[in-house]
Amino acid sequence: MPTNRQQHLDNRPEGEAVVGNFKLVTAETPPLQDNQVLVRHHYLSLDPYMRGRMNESKSYAQPQPLGETMQGGTVGEVVESKHPKYAVGDKVVGFGGWQEYSVVDGNQVGALRKVDTTHVPLSHYLGAVGMPGVTAWYGLVKIIAPKEGDTVVITAASGAVGSAFGALAKARGCRVVGIAGGPDKCRYVTEELGFDACIDYRANPDIKTMSKALKEACPKGIDGYFENVGGYIFDAVLLRTNAFARVALCGMIAGYDGAPLPLNNPALILINRLKIEGFIVSEHMEVWPEALKELGGLVASGKLRPRESMAEGIESAPEAFLGLLKGKNFGKQLVKLV
Amino acid sequence: MPTNRQQHLDNRPEGEAVVGNFKLVTAETPPLQDNQVLVRHHYLSLDPYMRGRMNESKSYAQPQPLGETMQGGTVGEVVESKHPKYAVGDKVVGFGGWQEYSVVDGNQVGALRKVDTTHVPLSHYLGAVGMPGVTAWYGLVKIIAPKEGDTVVITAASGAVGSAFGALAKARGCRVVGIAGGPDKCRYVTEELGFDACIDYRANPDIKTMSKALKEACPKGIDGYFENVGGYIFDAVLLRTNAFARVALCGMIAGYDGAPLPLNNPALILINRLKIEGFIVSEHMEVWPEALKELGGLVASGKLRPRESMAEGIESAPEAFLGLLKGKNFGKQLVKLV
Repeated sequence: MPTNRQQHLDNRPEGEAVVGNFKLVTAETPPLQDNQVLVRHHYLSLDPYMRGRMNESKSYAQPQPLGETMQGGTVGEVVESKHPKYAVGDKVVGFGGWQEYSVVDGNQVGALRKVDTTHVPLSHYLGAVGMPGVTAWYGLVKIIAPKEGDTVVITAASGAVGSAFGALAKARGCRVVGIAGGPDKCRYVTEELGFDACIDYRANPDIKTMSKALKEACPKGIDGYFENVGGYIFDAVLLRTNAFARVALCGMIAGYDGAPLPLNNPALILINRLKIEGFIVSEHMEVWPEALKELGGLVASGKLRPRESMAEGIESAPEAFLGLLKGKNFGKQLVKLV
Repeated sequence: MPTNRQQHLDNRPEGEAVVGNFKLVTAETPPLQDNQVLVRHHYLSLDPYMRGRMNESKSYAQPQPLGETMQGGTVGEVVESKHPKYAVGDKVVGFGGWQEYSVVDGNQVGALRKVDTTHVPLSHYLGAVGMPGVTAWYGLVKIIAPKEGDTVVITAASGAVGSAFGALAKARGCRVVGIAGGPDKCRYVTEELGFDACIDYRANPDIKTMSKALKEACPKGIDGYFENVGGYIFDAVLLRTNAFARVALCGMIAGYDGAPLPLNNPALILINRLKIEGFIVSEHMEVWPEALKELGGLVASGKLRPRESMAEGIESAPEAFLGLLKGKNFGKQLVKLV
């Protein structure tokens, strides 16, 4: 059996997460039992929610255990199989964690899913046609539920969720406005992802300037907002909401480190009769088939061409993850292992 | 025609509202035109939302105009009529404002509604069987939508909305926990209104003590919350919410004066996958008949016996209103004019 390198969570962050929280460990992969499958990971997914799990505090998921392999989504290839449903060479999506190989029970419901790479590149099953894409779909379709002509706004617009959100919202006839960090990302969001406008938060670093920029980019106000950053941007968006606007809330990167970020004027929820709903897409598995079908179609037809930030090798995962938390990635952050 | 005393908004508050913002004015009631009705007001309703309208800033309603009679709900008796639908002696609910008489166009849709005082006292049409009652009904039934056995919490529990909310929630098999100011109100909430528990916010003046009190009163966590105060109580309740809890948000008394009150940990909306929805009951007229029917039944059968705080005479309205904003009332705050 092959040697397997893993990234463990060695200790929990105090405030900001650092490289020293992780530890690279080498292990042997055990021989396969009946019905087990050995998957060689081609790509690991790095996602902001992982930061929350590094804390011990109460959250929607169990904390990541100390001294064990970091959990996370993976795509790869079956290299050995003792399960009749899986053959060597099958491409599979799973939750194999930050390691080069995983041994998976082929009978466990939802643990592995075979995918077709004819029209959709394998790595996209961790992004646009995977969890981030379905996250965008659920927030837009099930919570924001836009009408044609509505104005919708999303933060981290150049990322995996943002790019899928833009394509899905344009397909529904919305005006789509992104928020991203820096002129390069903003140019990409409008020119390549097809957003109608993009606001650079670095050039608008406080509620006053951001609110003014939103007013210009959203002359008819904001009907829907996908929130995944928190802080002053959330405050500024609420100031520009129309009556009965809907806010889908999934991830508040800015708040994972250290002190919680307040919402400074919650009275606006009443004044504008807003609906704000938090969600975790893994709790809504019933929508995945419909969402993945639409997302796969958008990618196959070229209407959604998501960008990827690729780190190389399992040893690079911690640094790439910390960069993601600081917005250094450009598009979906992956680690390439093969 | 009778002489009519009115309370005008003379100037807007700077920070806290004061008696000097109002001005008592005497006017003649004009002779009736065809289809008009002259109503003598028996009771005026005083409600927290009026404070918001005294400001000039953007809100869901137009600001109260300066130099004009304060707007507000009224019940009274028709004393003269040039409209075929209304006869002298009819009891009517309307929106006559802070004055002793009003002249109403009987053809204006929704301006007047005849009511039956056989089983429901006239004043209750401004409270339990009026706007506050329907507010409680909408928040509970349409937003919180509780299942039997759910734990629901409401602030200002001894007030008009709170008392109706308690009766409606008990009828649905919920555990109902109130929050009110002082031991007398808390005793009333549990002993007379039938709540399962009541927390005195004066004895729990910060997030830590309030959160502990909520844990004791809600051993199974909180599934639904009716928010009408804001501030640290809102923060403390969110800490105790169960996954998928619903928050109906209608009125944030604590925030009407001066600086907006922040929500300190909005990440809980994601962590507990909460739904928070602001609403104004006048925008949901379609539910009023169903809600008023249930509320009238609860009052007529004695299951809902709301208390009233009664000020006497139009001259007392400003002081009674300012007392309401400070929680000095006990039950629905009215001004008795006849």
